[in-house]
Amino acid sequence: MIASILHPGEMGISVAAAAVQSGHSVLWVSDGRSDKTKKRAESLKLKDVEKLSELAESDVIFSICPPQVAIETATSVSATDFKGLYVDANAGSPETKKLISEILNKNNIDFVDAGIVGPPANFEGSTRMYVSGERSEEVEDFFSNGLLDVRSIGSEIGKAASLKIAYGAWTKGSSALILAVRAMAKSSGVEKELIEEWKLSQPSAESLTLLSASLNSPKAWRFVSEMQEISKTFEAENIPSAFWEAAAEIYARLSKFKDFSEDQLDIDTVLEKLIE
Amino acid sequence: MIASILHPGEMGISVAAAAVQSGHSVLWVSDGRSDKTKKRAESLKLKDVEKLSELAESDVIFSICPPQVAIETATSVSATDFKGLYVDANAGSPETKKLISEILNKNNIDFVDAGIVGPPANFEGSTRMYVSGERSEEVEDFFSNGLLDVRSIGSEIGKAASLKIAYGAWTKGSSALILAVRAMAKSSGVEKELIEEWKLSQPSAESLTLLSASLNSPKAWRFVSEMQEISKTFEAENIPSAFWEAAAEIYARLSKFKDFSEDQLDIDTVLEKLIE
Repeated sequence: MIASILHPGEMGISVAAAAVQSGHSVLWVSDGRSDKTKKRAESLKLKDVEKLSELAESDVIFSICPPQVAIETATSVSATDFKGLYVDANAGSPETKKLISEILNKNNIDFVDAGIVGPPANFEGSTRMYVSGERSEEVEDFFSNGLLDVRSIGSEIGKAASLKIAYGAWTKGSSALILAVRAMAKSSGVEKELIEEWKLSQPSAESLTLLSASLNSPKAWRFVSEMQEISKTFEAENIPSAFWEAAAEIYARLSKFKDFSEDQLDIDTVLEKLIE
Repeated sequence: MIASILHPGEMGISVAAAAVQSGHSVLWVSDGRSDKTKKRAESLKLKDVEKLSELAESDVIFSICPPQVAIETATSVSATDFKGLYVDANAGSPETKKLISEILNKNNIDFVDAGIVGPPANFEGSTRMYVSGERSEEVEDFFSNGLLDVRSIGSEIGKAASLKIAYGAWTKGSSALILAVRAMAKSSGVEKELIEEWKLSQPSAESLTLLSASLNSPKAWRFVSEMQEISKTFEAENIPSAFWEAAAEIYARLSKFKDFSEDQLDIDTVLEKLIE
């Protein structure tokens, strides 16, 4: 089959690799993309069709981009002659997924909702892609090589989104929360005492702050819109959503660390950005 | 020395026991207290002086009550003839502690700020009481038997409060957050899938929801004001505080479980209260 990937960042390139290794041809569109993305696509020998309109020949399109451009991307595709299956694997709310589904369905494009859990799928067992929608089992069959573990969880659009939202709500929400706590302890002069107490009674807390600082800060810029999608989803379910409004603010303060390397991001550097 | 405890709940009674075992006489005031509290005090053979005005003979008064009545309790004591040392060990903000200090100082009562971390001090090593203030080392010396580990962290009023706030912000904030997450997953039909994914990639998450439900729900009614004090503290430090506004709302929804036993609080019962 012919698949297209919009737009291959680290996660997208790993999905493209899984598709290639499952025996499919993979296209992408270089128009407007960065040199870093171009290098990624070249490294996998993806076929650059240069323009979005050239994707019409694809059987399936995967959209893997920051959630704030997911609707725009789907709208652009719906304006082409593409009539295949469109899979949105962004961290959007169920409502966003339903909106995307409507936009595409109006133009006779079928839709599958997807949520990816885990790091870029470079090792077997590291990463699941949950899919839901009428044709979700076709997506499961599409990835046959095992690098990306695709799991169909039903026919309802929004179900894969809900699962991804719930998953990220804990991992990214709790990371933001504990960074806020250590920042507050630092700014009020009790950081040392808190770390000592954590060593006695919360043995994993200190290391969680270190990992959150070094691993999440370079990605914080794109977590902001994900936290907003999470907040909207909880609000729609009438469950307190302000955890993720606060998390969005924490990640907004860290967004200047975009693409910093982990060894530039010691805990003090990160906490100072939260306090200033 | 003569110490008084206002008002001995589970935590207070353990502090009273530590004082008795350190060789001190302990008074308490039965006026307006429940039968449960009376039984607790009798079990330790504390001396019931019946009225607050009769505490004036104490060398030190410990206030260990829900934070929403901490200021009221200090104000009542300041209207008596008591001129000793007043220790507030409630989970209040640094601002609340400073306010209490001012109320007492005006009436020539010295003040020590305290924050208790851990369960009621029934086992050696389980519980620390951090104290700060000019006379905080006297409180350290007062508890000589080792059941309650008292640690002076300086002369500044508000420092013990900041440490207790930071500690509870993580433990109680993250418990509320993960209950919200599982409630959302349940209400949107992906609870089973979330638990399966957690088993693969977040091995401690499911058990954290179970512990949070059974251990925190009976105490949720008094966590509400603690979360509000935490939120105020973060706001004063200009660090996103909405995490704890959401946590206060979660605990408010669970406050009907006051004094339920742990085995009445299975996860479904608790989640349904969050969703309804």
